[in-house]
Amino acid sequence: MLPYLGSHYGNPSSLHRYGRRSERALRQGRLQIAGIVNASPAEILITSGATESNNTAISGAAALHPGGHIITSAIEHDAVLEPCARLESAGFSVSYVPVGGDGIIDPDDVQRAVTDRTFLASVMLANNEVGTVQPISEISRICREHGILLHTDAVQAVGKISVDVNRLGVDMLSMSSHKINGPKGVGALYIRSGVRIMPMILGGGQEGGMRSGTENVAGVVGFGKACQMARDDARRLHMMQLRDLLVEMVLKEIPYTTYNGNRNQRIPDNAHFTFLGVSGEDLIIKLDEEGIAASTGSACSIRTQKESHVLRAMGLDHEHITGSLRLTVGVHNTRQEMVQAAGALKKVVAQLRAVSPFKEKYRFG
Amino acid sequence: MLPYLGSHYGNPSSLHRYGRRSERALRQGRLQIAGIVNASPAEILITSGATESNNTAISGAAALHPGGHIITSAIEHDAVLEPCARLESAGFSVSYVPVGGDGIIDPDDVQRAVTDRTFLASVMLANNEVGTVQPISEISRICREHGILLHTDAVQAVGKISVDVNRLGVDMLSMSSHKINGPKGVGALYIRSGVRIMPMILGGGQEGGMRSGTENVAGVVGFGKACQMARDDARRLHMMQLRDLLVEMVLKEIPYTTYNGNRNQRIPDNAHFTFLGVSGEDLIIKLDEEGIAASTGSACSIRTQKESHVLRAMGLDHEHITGSLRLTVGVHNTRQEMVQAAGALKKVVAQLRAVSPFKEKYRFG
Ligand SMILES: Cc1ncc(COP(=O)(O)O)c(C=O)c1O
Ligand SMILES: Cc1ncc(COP(=O)(O)O)c(C=O)c1O
Repeated sequence: MLPYLGSHYGNPSSLHRYGRRSERALRQGRLQIAGIVNASPAEILITSGATESNNTAISGAAALHPGGHIITSAIEHDAVLEPCARLESAGFSVSYVPVGGDGIIDPDDVQRAVTDRTFLASVMLANNEVGTVQPISEISRICREHGILLHTDAVQAVGKISVDVNRLGVDMLSMSSHKINGPKGVGALYIRSGVRIMPMILGGGQEGGMRSGTENVAGVVGFGKACQMARDDARRLHMMQLRDLLVEMVLKEIPYTTYNGNRNQRIPDNAHFTFLGVSGEDLIIKLDEEGIAASTGSACSIRTQKESHVLRAMGLDHEHITGSLRLTVGVHNTRQEMVQAAGALKKVVAQLRAVSPFKEKYRFG
Repeated sequence: MLPYLGSHYGNPSSLHRYGRRSERALRQGRLQIAGIVNASPAEILITSGATESNNTAISGAAALHPGGHIITSAIEHDAVLEPCARLESAGFSVSYVPVGGDGIIDPDDVQRAVTDRTFLASVMLANNEVGTVQPISEISRICREHGILLHTDAVQAVGKISVDVNRLGVDMLSMSSHKINGPKGVGALYIRSGVRIMPMILGGGQEGGMRSGTENVAGVVGFGKACQMARDDARRLHMMQLRDLLVEMVLKEIPYTTYNGNRNQRIPDNAHFTFLGVSGEDLIIKLDEEGIAASTGSACSIRTQKESHVLRAMGLDHEHITGSLRLTVGVHNTRQEMVQAAGALKKVVAQLRAVSPFKEKYRFG
């Protein structure tokens, strides 16, 4: 990325050599981004991130179907749920298909939700809290049968499992650079050739008029390189082995712990636990002191302090939701670090349980 | 920016130390961005660039005034004109105030355009083709009198002239990082405290719910630093002296040349000429061979090959529009480079005129 933040600073719309060099860099980045989902470069719309991608897909399709019906799921990211909620107040109707206790959607529920006004289904490929992978190609068959556009938020799946827009049978697919170690502030929306939506951001006509604004050249270069590097089965296997080791140690060493979400239909880097009797946010603070960066799984829930709608949809009660924690394994992590993380977790969970109001209830000690 | 692309990679929404460090960086950047327009940090909305800022301001205000009336100008950037055009097809009405031959708007024309349905005026502070600076504080008085929100696209003004949201009396103001040598893909919208608009991009609730999506931390750091560096009168004086030198040499040495746009109400780095009998695009190609990066003034006009609406609004005919060229002086340029540029221009204009179809008409030789 560095040359494009410095000496190679041209605007890709400029006719002079500096502009043309940036234009070439964009083209190369777009090719790499397309590659990771088996799309063609002309089907890749560069955005400022997956939130914009999701908003563009949903509001862009809706603009052509006033008053229509959308199917989505109860466990989507807020970047899908919020645009849907706004459309509901603008006269659209939205169905939220449920999930099972393992965090997986039943395609039959999608089938049952179809009406003759349905123009769009937006169902995520992998969930950002519990990491479950949804049966998108089965949902695709239902959508194709009824002439419904299918969008999938693949932010958590790209680079972690094999993602192929044709095998999935999706019409639109959202990606984010920083979820695969690329720079923040850049993402993409795959739009299948022939699918028409309205652009959201209008102006100078960049991206074939579908997304105006001077392109984030360095960001695209970084995102492209990250895509290229993430197409590596050895990386994925490494993450999965570390994750499985971590899960095994945690479940063995820490009592009153559950592992949430389907074990098999799951991205390789996600581990999601409930530690009864403690609060996930206290755990994050304590783990931070031990040098471990954890999360409850979504930025929004932290900001608004609201309970996870994903865990709620999976049927967890308040007590279990409160005790939940997501640990994500990075490609640079080691086995040694898994051992450390499990040890740190064991220690801080014990510390917090010693002062827990649920101490008597569960007799943790 | 570099640490925030590497070791300091936390998501500012995360509770752990990596997250908090990114959050602090965002806060610092926002402070610097606010500083360059004399706003308070809470009034700065971070966006992916000025195109998004303009779209947010216009569609965000429009969402609260269905069917209302907007005043804008005939010389706005497409990132204002296109959102206005879309609103026109959605039942809004839009007035386009004209400009004089010198590229300056008459505030009386704004006054005359006001109706009792007018809720927004969007008039640029400085034009991107001819560099003219508009009388925004006079337009503000009219808007205040009628309770009309005033937005200004200040992309070309920030860092070039003193911009103070209070002295200008604007409610919203758009900025772009890469126009002041910061990174591409980041911008801001100033929204005066108390002014309410609807967000365009919905999701995780970042930016106080006004612009969701994981923040471009490195971009904000770079934009902030660029703002801090651009608050420097010596830089502006340097650009103006070089620009004035260039203009003087060009007008003296190249016959049948006009200098477009008001000479005094003008940003210090812009020089805009018409060289009769040649085409601006041919000039760009030829100048590029001489190592000089020039432009016709807007990316969109290049992409769509359409005639400049700005020059048309100023009353230039087709022949004069075709012969137009923008040269922008950078802060790192030198006097020596101005002499080179003027020399190169003289040479390539002569070359092109020697084969011009207008050769007989003007007897250039
Ligand atoms: C006056 C003006 N407004 C808006 C923009 C759009 O800025 P960006 O392309 O960075 O989104 C530009 C840049 O070309 C401009 O010159
Ligand atoms: C599933 C999912 N969708 C969308 C987003 C939004 O991505 P971004 O914040 O990069 O815009 C995220 C990131 O948190 C996510 O996990």
